[in-house]
Amino acid sequence: MAEYEAAGEEVELDEARVEAIREAVDQGDSALVSRLLEPLHAADIADLLEQIGATERRELLALWSGEIDGDVLSELDETIREEVIESLPPEVVAEAVRDLDTDDVVDILEDLEAPAQGKILDALELVDRVAVEQAMSFPEGSAGRLMQREVVVAPEHWTVGDAIDFLREATALPDQFYHVILVDPRMKPLGYITLGRLLSARRDVRLKDITEDSFRTVVATEEEEEVAYIFNQYHLISCPVVDENDRLVGVITIDDAMNVLDEEHEEDMLLLAGVGEEASVFDGPIATVRQRLPWLVVNLFTASLSAFVISRFEATIAALVALAAVMPIVASTGGIAGTQSLAVAVRALATRDLTSSNARRVVLREVTAGAINGVVLAVILGLVGTLVLGDPWMGLVLALAMITNQIVAAFGGVMVPLTLERFGLDPALASGTFVTTLTDVMGYLAFLGLATMVLL
Amino acid sequence: MAEYEAAGEEVELDEARVEAIREAVDQGDSALVSRLLEPLHAADIADLLEQIGATERRELLALWSGEIDGDVLSELDETIREEVIESLPPEVVAEAVRDLDTDDVVDILEDLEAPAQGKILDALELVDRVAVEQAMSFPEGSAGRLMQREVVVAPEHWTVGDAIDFLREATALPDQFYHVILVDPRMKPLGYITLGRLLSARRDVRLKDITEDSFRTVVATEEEEEVAYIFNQYHLISCPVVDENDRLVGVITIDDAMNVLDEEHEEDMLLLAGVGEEASVFDGPIATVRQRLPWLVVNLFTASLSAFVISRFEATIAALVALAAVMPIVASTGGIAGTQSLAVAVRALATRDLTSSNARRVVLREVTAGAINGVVLAVILGLVGTLVLGDPWMGLVLALAMITNQIVAAFGGVMVPLTLERFGLDPALASGTFVTTLTDVMGYLAFLGLATMVLL
Repeated sequence: MAEYEAAGEEVELDEARVEAIREAVDQGDSALVSRLLEPLHAADIADLLEQIGATERRELLALWSGEIDGDVLSELDETIREEVIESLPPEVVAEAVRDLDTDDVVDILEDLEAPAQGKILDALELVDRVAVEQAMSFPEGSAGRLMQREVVVAPEHWTVGDAIDFLREATALPDQFYHVILVDPRMKPLGYITLGRLLSARRDVRLKDITEDSFRTVVATEEEEEVAYIFNQYHLISCPVVDENDRLVGVITIDDAMNVLDEEHEEDMLLLAGVGEEASVFDGPIATVRQRLPWLVVNLFTASLSAFVISRFEATIAALVALAAVMPIVASTGGIAGTQSLAVAVRALATRDLTSSNARRVVLREVTAGAINGVVLAVILGLVGTLVLGDPWMGLVLALAMITNQIVAAFGGVMVPLTLERFGLDPALASGTFVTTLTDVMGYLAFLGLATMVLL
Repeated sequence: MAEYEAAGEEVELDEARVEAIREAVDQGDSALVSRLLEPLHAADIADLLEQIGATERRELLALWSGEIDGDVLSELDETIREEVIESLPPEVVAEAVRDLDTDDVVDILEDLEAPAQGKILDALELVDRVAVEQAMSFPEGSAGRLMQREVVVAPEHWTVGDAIDFLREATALPDQFYHVILVDPRMKPLGYITLGRLLSARRDVRLKDITEDSFRTVVATEEEEEVAYIFNQYHLISCPVVDENDRLVGVITIDDAMNVLDEEHEEDMLLLAGVGEEASVFDGPIATVRQRLPWLVVNLFTASLSAFVISRFEATIAALVALAAVMPIVASTGGIAGTQSLAVAVRALATRDLTSSNARRVVLREVTAGAINGVVLAVILGLVGTLVLGDPWMGLVLALAMITNQIVAAFGGVMVPLTLERFGLDPALASGTFVTTLTDVMGYLAFLGLATMVLL
C-alpha cells in the first residue's frame, strides 16, 4: 500500500521547495538534496535545473549527479541540456539514457554536437543503437524522428482471444501503447483496435470487426507539423507510421504530438514578434542578441522608408509644425489594427480555418471591419483634433487619414500572411515587420499628403 | 474486410472535394451531397461548413440535415454552431446530440442561449440529462466541465484477473478509456493502471502493485488552464477528477486537455495582439469590430501621449525640420524590440519557465541583450544618419537615443507581463499596447530631448 500512497502524494515544485533545495546546495548537503529531489517528477526537476543560475546548477549536479536519470535529461530545455550533459561524467550519462525509449534518446541526440552524440550512442545497447541511428536517418522535424519503433501488431485473421493470449505471453511490450495494430502479411497497417475495446469484446470476435473508425497513418518523411494537425483534427491517441512502401515502421503517440503542437504555437508567436523560433527564456544575452538583432536591423531600414516619406513633406511640416506632433497617431493606430488582423489570420492559417475556399470572404470581412473601425476612430480623432488644435480642417485631415490607414491595415494584415503562405513560406515569418512598415508608410503618406492639399 | 479497408482510406477535405460539394449543393443534388460527405471525418465536415458562406451553408444543411450527427455539431466553431443548430429541425438536433458523450454535450450547451439549451436538454435521456446538468453546475472553464463522468474503477484489493473478468462482463464501458482507476471504499482514487500493463500482467498480480508512477488527480473546480498544464508537464493520458471530499467524480482525457492547450495558446496570441480572446476568422464584420475597436480606441489615447511629448518640442522641430523625418526610426525600432522581449516573456510565463526564482536573472539578461542590440543599431544608425543628413552631431543624437530606447524596450517588454502576472491578470492582456506606448514615448522623448541639447 505504501508505494501507491507515495505515488499519489503529488509533490509539486513550489517556491518553498526551490528555496529549501537551494539552501541544501549552498550547505553542500548531498543527502538533503537527494531527499528533497526524490519525490519530484522528472519534469519538475528539469524545471528546477532550468530556473536556477549556471553556478548553482553545477553545484547541484556535483552533489546529485549519480542519481540523475534519463527522464530528467529528456525534460530539460535544449539550451540547458547540452551544458548539463557536458558537466556530467560520461558513465552517468550512459547509465541515464539506457532506460529511455528510443524516441526520447533521438530527441536528446538531435540537439547535441557530434562528439557528445557519439558518447551517448556508444552507451546504448546494440539493438537500441540501431533503432536510434535509423530514426536519426529521417530528416529533422519528420514523423520518423517522432515515432517510437516499439509497436504491438496482430495479423488480420486473429481473434480477440488470440490477441489477448499474445499480449499476456509477450515478454517485452512498449512502455506506452493504446492500440493493437492490425497488419497484413507485408506489414501494411489495416486498422487498429483500442485496448479498451479488446478487453471488453468476446474472445471469438475477429479483430477486423472491431477496428476504430478514425484510423489514419502517416508516412515517416511527413513533417511533424502535419502530424500534430492530424492528431488534433481527428482526435487520435496514437498513429501508425509507414515507410514509402506502406509498411509499418513505428507509431507516434499523442503526448509527442501534443509536444509538437506546443512548439508550433511557440514558433508562430515568436516569429510573429520577430524573434528567432528557437528563442527561450534560458538563453544567455549573446544568444538573445543573435536571435533578435537581425529583425531589428531589418526594421531599421524599413523604418527609414517612413523617414523618407516624411522628408518629402518637410516644407509642409515647416509651414505647420503641429503636424509633426500628431502624425504618429495615425501611423500607430494603423499598426495596432494591422497586428490584430495579422494575428487572427496567422492563427487561422495554422488551424487551416483560412483556406482558398474562404480567403476572399475573410479579406472582405477584414476590409469591412477596418472601414467601420476607421470611421469610428475618425469621428473621435476628428472631434478631439479639432478641439485641441482649434482647426476643423486639421480634424478633417486626421479623420480621412485614419479611415484610409485602417482599411490598408486590415487589408495588409490578412494579405501579407496569405501571400507568404501562397509562396510556401511560414505565414508568421516577419509578417509583423511587413505589416507595420505598410501601416507606418501609409499613415504618414495619407496624413501629410492630405495636410499638404487641405491645410496649405 | 471491406469495412476496415474503407476506414483506412483516409479521405481528406481537399480543394477538389470542396468544389465538388459546392457544385452538388448548387444543383440541389441531395444524393450526391450525401455521397461526397459520407467518407469524410466529422471534423472535416465541420471545417467545410465553416469555410463556405452563410447562404451556401443553409442550402447544404437543407439538402443534408437528416444525416448530420452529433460529432459534426461538436466539431463546429462556436460562432457557426449556434447558427447551424437554429437552422436545423429540433428533432434532428435531438437525435444528433443523443449519441454524444456527456462532456461533448456540455461543450455544445455552454455556448448556446437558454431556449436552445432547453431544447437540447429535453432531447436527452434522463440519466444523460442529469449528468449534463451536474457538469453545467461547475464553473465555466473548470475541470468539472471538461471531464466525462463515465469512469472505470476497481476496488484496491482486486487482482489483475478480477479486473479483466469485470471488464469482459461489463455491459456499458466508456467510448474511450485508458486506465482502470483504483479506489478505496469511499471512492477516493488511489492510483491507476494502464490497460497495456493490465493485459500483460499475470492474473494473480494485485492491481495496487502495478499502478503508474505518474498518477495525479485534479479537483473539479480547478481551472482548465491548470489541467492542461498538468497534462503537458507530467505527460498524462488521463487524469481522475475528484470533488472537494477527494471522491472520484469523473475523468479528463488527453484529447480534451490538448484542446484546452490549443485554446490557451490562441488566447495568448490574440490578447497579445490586442484582439478579444474569442476572435475567430468566421466572425462577421460587426463581431470583429466589437472585438477590436476597444483596443484601437485605447491606442488612440496612448498614441496621443506621444503626440503630447512631441508637441513639447515644436520649437526644436521648427528650427530643424529634418528631425521630424527621422524621429519615428528610434520609436519604431524600440517598438519591435519591446514586442520581441514581450513575446518571449509571455510565452515563458505560460509554460511556467519564468518564475520568481529566475525573474531577476531574466530581466538582467533582457537589459544586457537590449544594451548590446542598442549599441549595434546605434553604430549603424549613427553612421548612416551622419552620411545622409551630413551632420555628425545628428548621427550622435540618433545613436544615443537608440541605445536608450533599446534598453527601455527590453526592460519594459519583460516587466509589463511580470507585473500583470503579479497582480493576478493575464500577462498577455494589453501588454502590447503598454509596451509600444512606452517605447514610443521614450523614443520621441530621448531623441527630441537630446536633439534640443546637442543640436540647437
